[in-house]
Amino acid sequence: MLENPKPNDGIVGLQLPPPLKCLLTFKDYLSVESKARQPSSLKGAAKYLKNPGLISLGGGLPCAEYFPIEEITVKVPSPPHFSEQETRELGQIVRAGKYDASEGDSVYDLAIALNYGLGSGSAQLIRFVTEHTEIVCNPPYADWHCALSVGSTSALEQAYRMFCERGDYVLSEEYTFVSAVETALPLGIKFLGVKIDDQGLIPESLDDILSNWDVRARGARKPHILYTVPSGQNPTGATQGTARRKAIYKLAQKHDLYIFEDEPYYFLQMQPYTGPNAPEIPPPANNEQFLKALIPTYLSMDVDGRVMRMDSFSKVIAPGSRVGWITASEQIVERFIRHNECSNQNPSGISQMVLYKLLDESWGHGGYLQWLINLRLQYTKRRDTILAACEKYLPKEIVSWNPPAAGMFVCLPSLPPLLTNSPSSGSNSTTTCTPIPAVQTTKRSSKSKKKSSIPLSIRASSSREAAGSQRRKLTSCPRTCFSGPLLRRHRRIR
Amino acid sequence: MLENPKPNDGIVGLQLPPPLKCLLTFKDYLSVESKARQPSSLKGAAKYLKNPGLISLGGGLPCAEYFPIEEITVKVPSPPHFSEQETRELGQIVRAGKYDASEGDSVYDLAIALNYGLGSGSAQLIRFVTEHTEIVCNPPYADWHCALSVGSTSALEQAYRMFCERGDYVLSEEYTFVSAVETALPLGIKFLGVKIDDQGLIPESLDDILSNWDVRARGARKPHILYTVPSGQNPTGATQGTARRKAIYKLAQKHDLYIFEDEPYYFLQMQPYTGPNAPEIPPPANNEQFLKALIPTYLSMDVDGRVMRMDSFSKVIAPGSRVGWITASEQIVERFIRHNECSNQNPSGISQMVLYKLLDESWGHGGYLQWLINLRLQYTKRRDTILAACEKYLPKEIVSWNPPAAGMFVCLPSLPPLLTNSPSSGSNSTTTCTPIPAVQTTKRSSKSKKKSSIPLSIRASSSREAAGSQRRKLTSCPRTCFSGPLLRRHRRIR
Repeated sequence: MLENPKPNDGIVGLQLPPPLKCLLTFKDYLSVESKARQPSSLKGAAKYLKNPGLISLGGGLPCAEYFPIEEITVKVPSPPHFSEQETRELGQIVRAGKYDASEGDSVYDLAIALNYGLGSGSAQLIRFVTEHTEIVCNPPYADWHCALSVGSTSALEQAYRMFCERGDYVLSEEYTFVSAVETALPLGIKFLGVKIDDQGLIPESLDDILSNWDVRARGARKPHILYTVPSGQNPTGATQGTARRKAIYKLAQKHDLYIFEDEPYYFLQMQPYTGPNAPEIPPPANNEQFLKALIPTYLSMDVDGRVMRMDSFSKVIAPGSRVGWITASEQIVERFIRHNECSNQNPSGISQMVLYKLLDESWGHGGYLQWLINLRLQYTKRRDTILAACEKYLPKEIVSWNPPAAGMFVCLPSLPPLLTNSPSSGSNSTTTCTPIPAVQTTKRSSKSKKKSSIPLSIRASSSREAAGSQRRKLTSCPRTCFSGPLLRRHRRIR
Repeated sequence: MLENPKPNDGIVGLQLPPPLKCLLTFKDYLSVESKARQPSSLKGAAKYLKNPGLISLGGGLPCAEYFPIEEITVKVPSPPHFSEQETRELGQIVRAGKYDASEGDSVYDLAIALNYGLGSGSAQLIRFVTEHTEIVCNPPYADWHCALSVGSTSALEQAYRMFCERGDYVLSEEYTFVSAVETALPLGIKFLGVKIDDQGLIPESLDDILSNWDVRARGARKPHILYTVPSGQNPTGATQGTARRKAIYKLAQKHDLYIFEDEPYYFLQMQPYTGPNAPEIPPPANNEQFLKALIPTYLSMDVDGRVMRMDSFSKVIAPGSRVGWITASEQIVERFIRHNECSNQNPSGISQMVLYKLLDESWGHGGYLQWLINLRLQYTKRRDTILAACEKYLPKEIVSWNPPAAGMFVCLPSLPPLLTNSPSSGSNSTTTCTPIPAVQTTKRSSKSKKKSSIPLSIRASSSREAAGSQRRKLTSCPRTCFSGPLLRRHRRIR
């Protein structure tokens, strides 16, 4: 899989991926736009520039001599001392010079990072995220690849344009990430909500929708895309368990669905909730225990190559890096890269350099996993704090909640029956997108209906939800987020 | 125009923009996709987060405490000492800390830059580029705005999606930037070439095409978009003079064209070429003289608001920053920002921070203009070197060239009659894009034909051009680029 596999710090027993290509192509699923993409002439020519001794008179790459940045340094935590206080006192300074690579000091330097790059992202950072994906997901087919994105919102927009035409339906959780919907709507793509319970998507509801799809009544072909946020879903906070994921993957096989696995909160899986004043569960003893405690990803069970996983550094390093990556079968990643070449090209080289210095040269995979364990424990503390506040201050006769297993969100729904009414009544526009109208199921609906009465949530912040009386009632049922400066003052005391 | 206008370093006599809105809306030109965009709920909610004392339980913004980057420093040149050698010896170290803003040390810090930002880009960098645009272009209407892009390729893709539908034609130079075409084709947008001479677009050819547009014969509505690279055009190296630009703008008014002004090479306008061994023209005496020597931009003559100018830091700072910006009327910029919110969101905050520290806090507008003068002189030297080599080594009986006034490219066409043949013969695919088939003009063609026999150029690097015998002949007519490490070794001697 990797050109230059690195030792993985002895943290996990890596298995070599099976020497099989993914079984299915999904080329028929590609849009007219995506099928029409040709390799970029400029990016195609760029690969010849590396030939030793070649002075190119071809493409218009500026000379590194004119990049007015001689050196960048970054002060970062030294594992396992991750707090801000420790970083100020014990942090390491990592340095990137302009000609480190040609001078043999590093494989990546500013002369490379500050110039044009390939549509996949830099080889250096791609290698790290590919190794990381292998450690965490270990996809069960051979020809999987990663490509950098400029964040998962962008990756998702590109994925829609790759797989959907105007008029198509995308399936998702009944209450879903507002930006996922708002990104799709202008492209003429509609969202259709699958009923959910405390573990997110209900397989029976998904099967129902697809088994009983009526092209004429719906005015659209049978959906071929499932968009899901399996862990710490936004806004409900629900996390799909292993069995649930397997059941949904099996249904995806039955109905030949392609899955967009959007996982910004995957590493914000927290320690099991033990209740107020109960003793805490000890943290993972080591990186291997930590990895074992994570719920398997869709990518890890994707024998067919029907999953595009979207990872992001936004929730685990910093959103401002605008760097994420996708993982999928080679043919799909190739189409994604073709689109990159003619749009954002690749993430900022400065961001890529900072991440490379931090993750690869400074922390390594072992240090990064230690950082992720640290985040797990930090978010566990935050969740437990807000749940303790809920216990103390909220009236249980009208509000209920489920302790989230991952993510940043706790739902505090009141008056559950309200939520089963059609939330689209009172909508002032067809672009109103959250919550998504519940699907009328035609069979197996008793189970779904029963499950759908468990706590749900809607976004707390939408101004649109204020329209119509039904809406006003729903706004009294907020989702809270515990990622903010709850535990201590944001501002540092010097 | 600016919320907090800064002193512009006394370098130019700024005039306040006239208190008039742009005259025309161009809303009818917007695509179905662009018209359907609604403000992002998340970005809309974000503005309330600044309220003092507010602890948000709303959107899922990570806490800055968990950004594992305590400090970034960047070593940059101290104007006017811009060489690498001088930077190593005399360069300044600029520093960005995590809480500089809340601690009163700066208006921009890593806690801001590393978190989610607004779709326009950060207020801090937007202010700088807006002031810079005012200094350079000073658009003649009041409600113009800038928004950051993740580079001009991305801005152009977004612009296509804003203004075009599948099947539309976009007009451009007959030989144009290959990525501009390759970005358009998968969207179902076709390019149509306007004849060119040594100053680029020929107004008569443009008028001809538009005056004689036959919707049925073309199978498409009359074009409403002109894509042009006015300065140092890629690949021909041509630069439109002031009179040429005015004539084209007037035609845009006549035919109600909207102009995409793509100007990566605008500040690579060089000193007038004096010929081999002739004395050099003295460099601009100061920033004001430099600004006066620049050819007026389309934006500077845009009384109607019919121009979207695309600026980029790629050729003047570093392509790897993946930061550029667009300037247009408020209504158009608003649509662009709506798209940003649901795609790339905004450029890397780390890039924005590095650029802000360099351009605003370190150099200021005066220092940045000094840097641009330095680039002008560097590229002048490079151009003169390659032209001297052409004089010395190339056989003039079969090769000719025009000294470029801007950009990175010199064309070396041979056998001009070849270029007037239809280059599409021998094309192996409808997506073959460069050169663009010449338009058959029906009147005024005598002048155009005469002008089109002056030196033209094609890209040297396209593998597609090898298809067909006609193609093979054309590849003997290369465009050279003088941006590479021609003058000294790329690798630094320690």
